[in-house]
Amino acid sequence: MNSILIQQVRIDDKFSDVLIEGNKISMIFDSIVVDADKIIDGKNKALIPGFANAHAHSAMTLFKGLGEDIPLMKWLHDYIWPYEAKLDEEMVYWGAKMACLEMIRTGTTVCNDMYWYPQVCKRAMEEMGLRSVQAYVWIDFFDKGRAANHKINLEKMYRESLGWSDLTQFSVGPHAIYSVSSDSLQWISAFAQEHEVMLHIHLAESQTEYEDSIKNWGVTPTKYLHNLGILGPNVVAAHSVWLSPEDIQILGDHGVCVVHNPNSNLKLASGYKFKYDELRDAGVRVCLGTDGCASSNNLDMLEAMKHAAFLQKAWRRDPAAMPLQELMTVASFNGYQAMNVHAGKIEVGMLADLILIDLQQSAFVPCHNFYANLIYAANGSAVDTVLCNGRILMEEKRVEGEAQIFEMTAKMAQKLITP
Amino acid sequence: MNSILIQQVRIDDKFSDVLIEGNKISMIFDSIVVDADKIIDGKNKALIPGFANAHAHSAMTLFKGLGEDIPLMKWLHDYIWPYEAKLDEEMVYWGAKMACLEMIRTGTTVCNDMYWYPQVCKRAMEEMGLRSVQAYVWIDFFDKGRAANHKINLEKMYRESLGWSDLTQFSVGPHAIYSVSSDSLQWISAFAQEHEVMLHIHLAESQTEYEDSIKNWGVTPTKYLHNLGILGPNVVAAHSVWLSPEDIQILGDHGVCVVHNPNSNLKLASGYKFKYDELRDAGVRVCLGTDGCASSNNLDMLEAMKHAAFLQKAWRRDPAAMPLQELMTVASFNGYQAMNVHAGKIEVGMLADLILIDLQQSAFVPCHNFYANLIYAANGSAVDTVLCNGRILMEEKRVEGEAQIFEMTAKMAQKLITP
Repeated sequence: MNSILIQQVRIDDKFSDVLIEGNKISMIFDSIVVDADKIIDGKNKALIPGFANAHAHSAMTLFKGLGEDIPLMKWLHDYIWPYEAKLDEEMVYWGAKMACLEMIRTGTTVCNDMYWYPQVCKRAMEEMGLRSVQAYVWIDFFDKGRAANHKINLEKMYRESLGWSDLTQFSVGPHAIYSVSSDSLQWISAFAQEHEVMLHIHLAESQTEYEDSIKNWGVTPTKYLHNLGILGPNVVAAHSVWLSPEDIQILGDHGVCVVHNPNSNLKLASGYKFKYDELRDAGVRVCLGTDGCASSNNLDMLEAMKHAAFLQKAWRRDPAAMPLQELMTVASFNGYQAMNVHAGKIEVGMLADLILIDLQQSAFVPCHNFYANLIYAANGSAVDTVLCNGRILMEEKRVEGEAQIFEMTAKMAQKLITP
Repeated sequence: MNSILIQQVRIDDKFSDVLIEGNKISMIFDSIVVDADKIIDGKNKALIPGFANAHAHSAMTLFKGLGEDIPLMKWLHDYIWPYEAKLDEEMVYWGAKMACLEMIRTGTTVCNDMYWYPQVCKRAMEEMGLRSVQAYVWIDFFDKGRAANHKINLEKMYRESLGWSDLTQFSVGPHAIYSVSSDSLQWISAFAQEHEVMLHIHLAESQTEYEDSIKNWGVTPTKYLHNLGILGPNVVAAHSVWLSPEDIQILGDHGVCVVHNPNSNLKLASGYKFKYDELRDAGVRVCLGTDGCASSNNLDMLEAMKHAAFLQKAWRRDPAAMPLQELMTVASFNGYQAMNVHAGKIEVGMLADLILIDLQQSAFVPCHNFYANLIYAANGSAVDTVLCNGRILMEEKRVEGEAQIFEMTAKMAQKLITP
């Protein structure tokens, strides 16, 4: 069994040795004497759990910077949709590889992904060594023919997934209540419950979605899903910035996981009054995500953490809102829990999805408070070394194959915009 | 005269050679054949103007991370003020050096500074090669004895400043309307006008300041300064998030410069509805700042640009608000103009305060839109090389003396918190 010993690394305010055997943390102690296959010097470094990006569309890295500063509908009609129609497997593959590269560089070790060609995204993630959940994306626009096709393809992908490695999980991904019929939603939900897989959906992202739901169905988007009997602890709902107090109670009662995506919500002007305190207090597991690079422009979870904190403080007018202690949990452990993966904390027996932070940079000098420096002063460039499932994916800021990924991504992005 | 030739560097969407002679840009052309003292290879790099941090308290880097997530008054009473009382020249010197290091690393080439021991901050900035404006800080809490002392010391510092190099300017820094008497404000303003120096003040930062002003003087903070006859194009007002429509008109009519500090305003929950469009349209020169590291935790102007843009889009509920094109002007040219320095654009005859961005990193792959990548995807870690006043301060991410600055800053920060 492969072993890695990280020596004298800072964990919170202490210094310890950490032993990793196979894909798990096997010992944490002041000083460990062992003949490990690999030694990592923890001097001037801090060890923290890897980040769980709980809502992303990885291959959308190809769209980064396309159609900026324009209203949502024009953005979708003139940029995103016409270009998405041109995507092929090769483009998605390199877009996903580029996303992996950026996630590794900025310390993300697991990604809850939702995009076209999920099997291709899976291949890219596994090649890069990252853990992910890959959704079967379902959009039927209330068309029964499309829904019938989806059923066949979803079941096919699920059967394939039974042979997947433990790095990747299958999930069902009905896009949203305005793009998937209620019959489909119920069928998908029943499938997910029968096969014990996650249901990943966009929920209550915009005011339009919220108001249209009330107009069309007489209830809020959350109540609509509740009435269909879909909500449960296997549901991961992305965005959820438009919630009534009753919606929050419903989400809490059903143990739903909600993913906050501050960058995307801010940049697309979807709404910024995310109800963190209320959701947490109602029993919702709040996670954090970046959304795709088309709307958030990067996949840096440290940036997302800062924005989540700043937003809560600002709109609540309370500098004590969303304290540092809760941010690490939201950005790592909660996401791992949502994906049913035993990681997100530095404890013996946990999977070794871990990152080392370089403390020899401006953000960490002086160091009155490590987490304040990490979240309020630093950004993803502070990540030095990344381990996922006990394997080193980046060491001292070097990731294998970077030059080729840059080259191929640029080529695919060019192909995307060439008429 | 020293000369630097930057070869084949990306400027906007073109590639050019740029020649710097002495402290100025002397030629920009497709290809320049010259025997320069120093050649910089511009391959995979973009050239942009250095950033102008228009409101900072540089030496507060020592306070970074002290007293997080607690309400403003407790923060000031239990952390900032007791610690500030312990500051000495050596602490301020190393705090300012640390700030310079971080500013250089993140591409800031000029800083409008306001802190205790301004002569010490000046020495630190000049040693690091940075341009700055150093304010004589005036707080009298309406005490005539204090004010009399300030007059003597301000005049003394002004006389000294006549012998300063052209890297540093003197300014007067009455702290705010709640900490400086009206008599003092008028005396300071008259001094500034007579000697043609900048007046740097905190204005309308919090709702408390706004409401107290109305309670105590019957007018808003802006109107109060207007009634005292203080407002003019030499005034740089920091924060200004609490403004009435009449206030905005007054600021525009007098050609006042207003510095937006999004990080600090968000984190301290001071108010986030900064009236960018209204101020710009009224004729105000809007600049950008980071505030001190006690409240914003870093000095990264690229982060401040992103936050400024995201905030406008979010609270106005308009994704087209504060477009990319205006952000570079706000973060560079406008700040330089406020400080009366002929820089902030890449044009022949302008001072060579320039930075090179490393395009070989995730934020810039793919590159559909350079400025979108720079502002929405990247952060200060993208800065590769920094020139100020024609001198190289950082080359390929190496800054001289970094290890010593880290060591001494950590030591001073420890001294600060030791009882």
